[in-house]
Amino acid sequence: MTDDLATAGERAALARILPRFARAEALLGPGDDAAMLAAPDGRVLLSTDAMVDGPDFRRAWSTPFELGWKAVATNLADIAAMGARPTGLLVALAAPGTTPVADLEGIADGMAAACERLAPGVGVVGGDLTRSPVLSLALTVTGSADGRDPVLRSGARPGHTIAYSGRLGLAAAGLRLLFATGEEDPAAIAALRRARAGVLAEQLAPRPPIGDGVLAAEAGATAMLDVSDGLLLDATRIAEASGVVLDLDRAALEREAEGVLAVSDPDGLPARVPALTAHEALGLVLGGGEDHGLLACFPGAVPESFRVLGVVRAGGAGVRLDGEPVDPSGWDSFTAS
Amino acid sequence: MTDDLATAGERAALARILPRFARAEALLGPGDDAAMLAAPDGRVLLSTDAMVDGPDFRRAWSTPFELGWKAVATNLADIAAMGARPTGLLVALAAPGTTPVADLEGIADGMAAACERLAPGVGVVGGDLTRSPVLSLALTVTGSADGRDPVLRSGARPGHTIAYSGRLGLAAAGLRLLFATGEEDPAAIAALRRARAGVLAEQLAPRPPIGDGVLAAEAGATAMLDVSDGLLLDATRIAEASGVVLDLDRAALEREAEGVLAVSDPDGLPARVPALTAHEALGLVLGGGEDHGLLACFPGAVPESFRVLGVVRAGGAGVRLDGEPVDPSGWDSFTAS
Repeated sequence: MTDDLATAGERAALARILPRFARAEALLGPGDDAAMLAAPDGRVLLSTDAMVDGPDFRRAWSTPFELGWKAVATNLADIAAMGARPTGLLVALAAPGTTPVADLEGIADGMAAACERLAPGVGVVGGDLTRSPVLSLALTVTGSADGRDPVLRSGARPGHTIAYSGRLGLAAAGLRLLFATGEEDPAAIAALRRARAGVLAEQLAPRPPIGDGVLAAEAGATAMLDVSDGLLLDATRIAEASGVVLDLDRAALEREAEGVLAVSDPDGLPARVPALTAHEALGLVLGGGEDHGLLACFPGAVPESFRVLGVVRAGGAGVRLDGEPVDPSGWDSFTAS
Repeated sequence: MTDDLATAGERAALARILPRFARAEALLGPGDDAAMLAAPDGRVLLSTDAMVDGPDFRRAWSTPFELGWKAVATNLADIAAMGARPTGLLVALAAPGTTPVADLEGIADGMAAACERLAPGVGVVGGDLTRSPVLSLALTVTGSADGRDPVLRSGARPGHTIAYSGRLGLAAAGLRLLFATGEEDPAAIAALRRARAGVLAEQLAPRPPIGDGVLAAEAGATAMLDVSDGLLLDATRIAEASGVVLDLDRAALEREAEGVLAVSDPDGLPARVPALTAHEALGLVLGGGEDHGLLACFPGAVPESFRVLGVVRAGGAGVRLDGEPVDPSGWDSFTAS
C-alpha cells in the first residue's frame, strides 16, 4: 500500500502498525488509555530519549527500519546501564502527513526486530501517533532491577577496574563515512552501504550489549553508564558523580582505535573519503559517541565480555590518560556544529 | 536571563530546568541513565502523549507555562482514566536552538504547577532535551492501580449508568474563540484573554478531575476513559470495546450545552466572534474534545462528582441519543482540517 498518513488517517495507520508489536510481553498492551507492565520487585526504572530528523538522523542515510531499530537500541541501553533488565517500550511518533504509512510500518518493524535481537520478550506496549512538520521518535523504556540495587554513576572507588563492553568509535567512524558521502547522491550512498555495511550498521542500527548490564550488576559493578556522548565525556560523568579519577590506559585505547582504522579504510569506496590517521581513529574512540556500549567500574573480577580500559584512582574528579589530565570534549547537541 | 538554547547549551539549560522539578517523589530522580519509581503492587501503568507546535498548540495563544501545564494535565488524565493514581512523569522536550531558555523554564514551571494542583507529590523524574526545528513535548506518565484491577473500556454492561466528571465542550469553546481571534494580532489575543480567561483556560490549561479516576474505580466503574477526542467518539470506543449501546440523554447534554453558551457569549469581546447557537453549543459538547474529563459506566451508585449522561443498553455496539443512532464524528488529527 502506498498511501500516506494524511490519506490513511491516524486510526487506519495505527491498525497497520500495532500488529507488528504483538509479541511484547505485557499485562495490558496497546488499546486502552494506558498499558500495564509487571514490576516484580515493586520498583520500575524509566528513561526517555528522542530522535529528531536533522539533528539526530537523516532520511537519506537511514531506512525506516534502521530508525526504529536505533531508537529502541539506544533506549534499551539506558536500562542496561542501570544493571537492569528492560521490560517494555512506549513510542511517541510524530510525523508529517506526507509520510508514507509504509515508512511507519518499517519503523515499527525495526523496533520489533531490535527488541527481538537485543531484549527478547520486550516490546512496544503503548504509544502515540501525532502529526508534526518533522519526523521524530520519542521513546520511553522501562526496566526492572529484580531486587538488586540499580548501578548508579556514583559508586566508583580508587582501585576499581574500568572496563567496557561493546564497540568503541565505530558508530562515529560510520557517521564520518556518511558525512563524507553526503546526502545528495543516492547512488553514492547505496554504494557506500554495500562496501561498508558493517561499520555503517554501527551508526545506523547499533547493537549495544544489553544483557551485559545485568551481568555487570551481578559481578558487582559499582558505577556504570552507556557511552552515548563519547568515552571521555561519559567517563567524566562517572568521575564527577563518584569523586574519583578515571585513569584510562592509552595502549588499551589504541587497540580500540586499531579496530576503527581496520573498518574505515577508504580503499574501494566510490565516495571521496580521506583515510583516517591513527590519531584521528583514537579521537573517534575517545570522543565519538553513539556506540552505546557499557562503561563500568568493578571492585573485583571483570565479566568476560568487558575489556579493561583503566583503573580508578584517588586525587580529584576527572579523567586522565596514562595519568595525564585530558580535556573531555564531548558532544552537546545544541552547541556542537 | 535572555539567552537561547543554542547559546546556553543543553547542559546549562538542564541545570536551570531540573531544580523546578525538585519536589517529585521518586526512588531515583533525574541525573543517571534512568529514574526509578515505586510500583507498590508490582505493576506499573504507562501512557505517552505528545504535543507538537502547530497541530496541537500555537505559540501565539499559549504561554510556555500553559504548554507545560496542558501536557501534564492531559497525560495525568490517561492514568486517571484507568482508575489509577499517577506516580511520575518523564518529558522528552524537543526545541529549536532559538528557543529562549526562559521559555523552557516556563514550560517546566507549568508542569510543576499542574502536578502540584492536579496530582500532588507527582512530578517529572526524568527526561530528554533535544534540538528540533519544531517545539514538541512528548510526555510519559506512570501510575499505580494499588492492587485494584485497572478500569478498561470493555466492562460496560446493559443497565449500567453512564456518567461524566469534568467540563464538557468548554475546551472546544475556548478554541473557537481563539480561532476567531486569529494568531496575528497580539493585542486582540491579549484582550480576549482578559475578557474570557475562564473558558480559555479550559483549552489552554485544563484541570481534569484526576482524583476522580480512583474514586470511580472504588465505586465499581466498569468502563472508563478520558474524553480527548469528543464525547460521541470516545463513547463509541467504550461501546465497541464493551459490545453495548451507550444511550445518551439529550436533555442532560443540553444542560451541558447551556454551560457552554453561558461562557461563549461574544458580548464585550474585541474580536469579531459570532454568537453560538444552542445547536452549535450542543455540537461542541458532543464532538468538541480536549476536555479530558472522565466518562465512566457504573453498575450502582454514581460518585457525587459525576453527572449522569445516560444508560448502557443491549442491542449492538454504538452510541445513541435518546435511543436514536448518531454518527460519531470525532477528531482525527490527520484527516481533520
